[in-house]
Amino acid sequence: MKMNHQEWARNEFRTLSHSLGFHFVPAEEIEHRLSRIRTAMEKNGIEAFLVIQKMDYFYLSGTTQDGLLFVPSQGRPLLLIKRELERAKIESPLEDVVALKANRELPSLIQNYLGKLPKVLGLELDVLPVKDYFRYQELFKGSKLRDASSILRDTRKIKSPFEINLMRVAGEIGRKVYQEGKKILKEGMTEIEFGGLLEAIAKTYGHEGLLRVRSLNYEAYTWHVLSGPNGGIVSQSDSPMGGLGLSPAFPVGASFKPMKPHEPILVDFGTCYHGYQTDETRMFSIGRMEQKFVDAYKACREIHNAVLEETRPGADCEALFLRTVRLAEKLGYKDSYLGPPGLQTRFIAHGIGLELNEIPFLAQGQSYPLEEGMTFAVEPKIVFPGEGSVGLENTVAVTQKGYEILTPLEMEIFEV
Amino acid sequence: MKMNHQEWARNEFRTLSHSLGFHFVPAEEIEHRLSRIRTAMEKNGIEAFLVIQKMDYFYLSGTTQDGLLFVPSQGRPLLLIKRELERAKIESPLEDVVALKANRELPSLIQNYLGKLPKVLGLELDVLPVKDYFRYQELFKGSKLRDASSILRDTRKIKSPFEINLMRVAGEIGRKVYQEGKKILKEGMTEIEFGGLLEAIAKTYGHEGLLRVRSLNYEAYTWHVLSGPNGGIVSQSDSPMGGLGLSPAFPVGASFKPMKPHEPILVDFGTCYHGYQTDETRMFSIGRMEQKFVDAYKACREIHNAVLEETRPGADCEALFLRTVRLAEKLGYKDSYLGPPGLQTRFIAHGIGLELNEIPFLAQGQSYPLEEGMTFAVEPKIVFPGEGSVGLENTVAVTQKGYEILTPLEMEIFEV
Repeated sequence: MKMNHQEWARNEFRTLSHSLGFHFVPAEEIEHRLSRIRTAMEKNGIEAFLVIQKMDYFYLSGTTQDGLLFVPSQGRPLLLIKRELERAKIESPLEDVVALKANRELPSLIQNYLGKLPKVLGLELDVLPVKDYFRYQELFKGSKLRDASSILRDTRKIKSPFEINLMRVAGEIGRKVYQEGKKILKEGMTEIEFGGLLEAIAKTYGHEGLLRVRSLNYEAYTWHVLSGPNGGIVSQSDSPMGGLGLSPAFPVGASFKPMKPHEPILVDFGTCYHGYQTDETRMFSIGRMEQKFVDAYKACREIHNAVLEETRPGADCEALFLRTVRLAEKLGYKDSYLGPPGLQTRFIAHGIGLELNEIPFLAQGQSYPLEEGMTFAVEPKIVFPGEGSVGLENTVAVTQKGYEILTPLEMEIFEV
Repeated sequence: MKMNHQEWARNEFRTLSHSLGFHFVPAEEIEHRLSRIRTAMEKNGIEAFLVIQKMDYFYLSGTTQDGLLFVPSQGRPLLLIKRELERAKIESPLEDVVALKANRELPSLIQNYLGKLPKVLGLELDVLPVKDYFRYQELFKGSKLRDASSILRDTRKIKSPFEINLMRVAGEIGRKVYQEGKKILKEGMTEIEFGGLLEAIAKTYGHEGLLRVRSLNYEAYTWHVLSGPNGGIVSQSDSPMGGLGLSPAFPVGASFKPMKPHEPILVDFGTCYHGYQTDETRMFSIGRMEQKFVDAYKACREIHNAVLEETRPGADCEALFLRTVRLAEKLGYKDSYLGPPGLQTRFIAHGIGLELNEIPFLAQGQSYPLEEGMTFAVEPKIVFPGEGSVGLENTVAVTQKGYEILTPLEMEIFEV
């Protein structure tokens, strides 16, 4: 059996990937996304959009093979592939897929395809490195380069039934992770050992391992297992608690600390299926958790439920957040809600999908309405410095009249 | 035991982190790095450097707590912390550590500290997003903003004994991962199950889980387990083989394919300890691997050894790469060396440290000498489309007269 790579890709790749559970993004799904993007481009005077960032590019093309996507506001998009053309052609339902040997070929390829070069070219300036921007300025001297990232972020914030379905599978994987986690947690096991095993379990169900964030410096990871006092430690991330981590280079999440009986053990685990993420948090304990933490966890459930009660199209994101602050105060957790005093975060939920920091944010300063198809992770947490923390998190989709929980896992404490 | 967060950090964090194996970066190490940076800044007319990217910032401060580092070419640096000031003060040996509530405070803080604003301000324009660059232009209207990323990359390419020692520990973790991997590999186990378990094992020895790359779109991961035909699949990454992966959103690395007897099973596993990475590849097989792959692996060892024979200060990086191309051809692997025809990569080694794509690159077009203290991962690989691939990879440090292997693991095939 000797074949060249192209033959292999054409003959066997599609069969193999289908047999191993790949879902390719359907053509009509991509077309629907493109039509929303084009409408926003016309409204904003963006004649063409050069899409570069991996998740934006995947969203509009169905592939993550190394390349760029050129989207004119009128006409079909052009997918430009730098390396694996054959695989990109199988993964993407787009019709115009060509090889791109080097970025300097872009203007002539686009000129040939479109018959002209765009006067206004949109780029994702929220993430594009400056050095690349300078190169595009050189390449497209006659074009005005404009930030078009908000067009993509605004389109991506509303999930289609296809996307929500993938998130349901991610949530289902998460459910199995926590249930199997209950079987393996043991006294004396370190936080990092437990976190590593949860990740290994998740992978056997299709979890893709990397969680994605739209940011230069912010990193996501799954081994956020914080036990006892480690749950009270704040760190680099904009979250109520960071944990100790393994070193100053990775000062967040699980550490070598062994887990002890009666401590609160917070497990915040994100799952990724076909690029789509869900995020959830549950509490574990070895033997009964100390009453103080049981009570605080009950408050988290009450706050969580209060958010969901109001979750429906039209509800204001900032108002939802502020309501939880008042409720936490009423329940006696003014100084420990969402972090220790002085370090309290100002959000109760973050949008989630292909990335962990999508729109909406249920947060201070974010006054806009929820819309049908938005998905977010709601995560009330309570922190006691020097002692520990508790929290609950579910990922939900906003439906026509309310919400659907995409992480359908029992909310009781996982006591072993 | 009730305490506020600051008390907790001051009283207990240092003790706890030491007891759990944290190594803080020593003051003299940071001072040595800073003196090299300052020399390069003066040479390049950079009056001050605002260091933003996480690994650059960690390299010069010893902490990754959310913040920025302001480095004047004359005088002491100023560490500006956005969130966890107490922990940053413990982690960093720098003396001037202050809180930064918002970036808009930067000019006045710097004016007060330095007595003036710099006329030429260096930034990491190779990674800084354009949107942030525009904000810095607004904040520092009287300053010329210049790309200073090459200063950092050039400084970081030479590792200190402190850094190489951390890489030795990473290599030692890798050694245990492969040796324990041999005990758990079984017929019928899927690639992703095996990859997930290797990662879980690595974490119990201090592996930090995330591998870091300096890039907008390139992602690194550890579960690069490719068996049989999956080893012949090319994908998005600039590497000889990508594998099938789990979906079009993550089309690289391990898949749900079960591993079969006599197939080549390539395991490319990166390990991270205290931020410092080593990268290595070994072959596994269940029963004896088919002779074709055994022969190709022997060729990889020969190419690997040929690179190391010439590894010493002064050796030219491009010449080392081209030598391997000639050797591969002589050994009969012209069309399968470093990828299938048309998709062959043009590098045999990449620099490695805090990131996976550091200087040096032993690659086409990279004609510069090796220097003492450089560290790189050398990885000859041979790919047969439709059949599989083999490879060998070690991470080495360039010493005064030759090299040291930082991944000291037997190079025989791991046959189970």
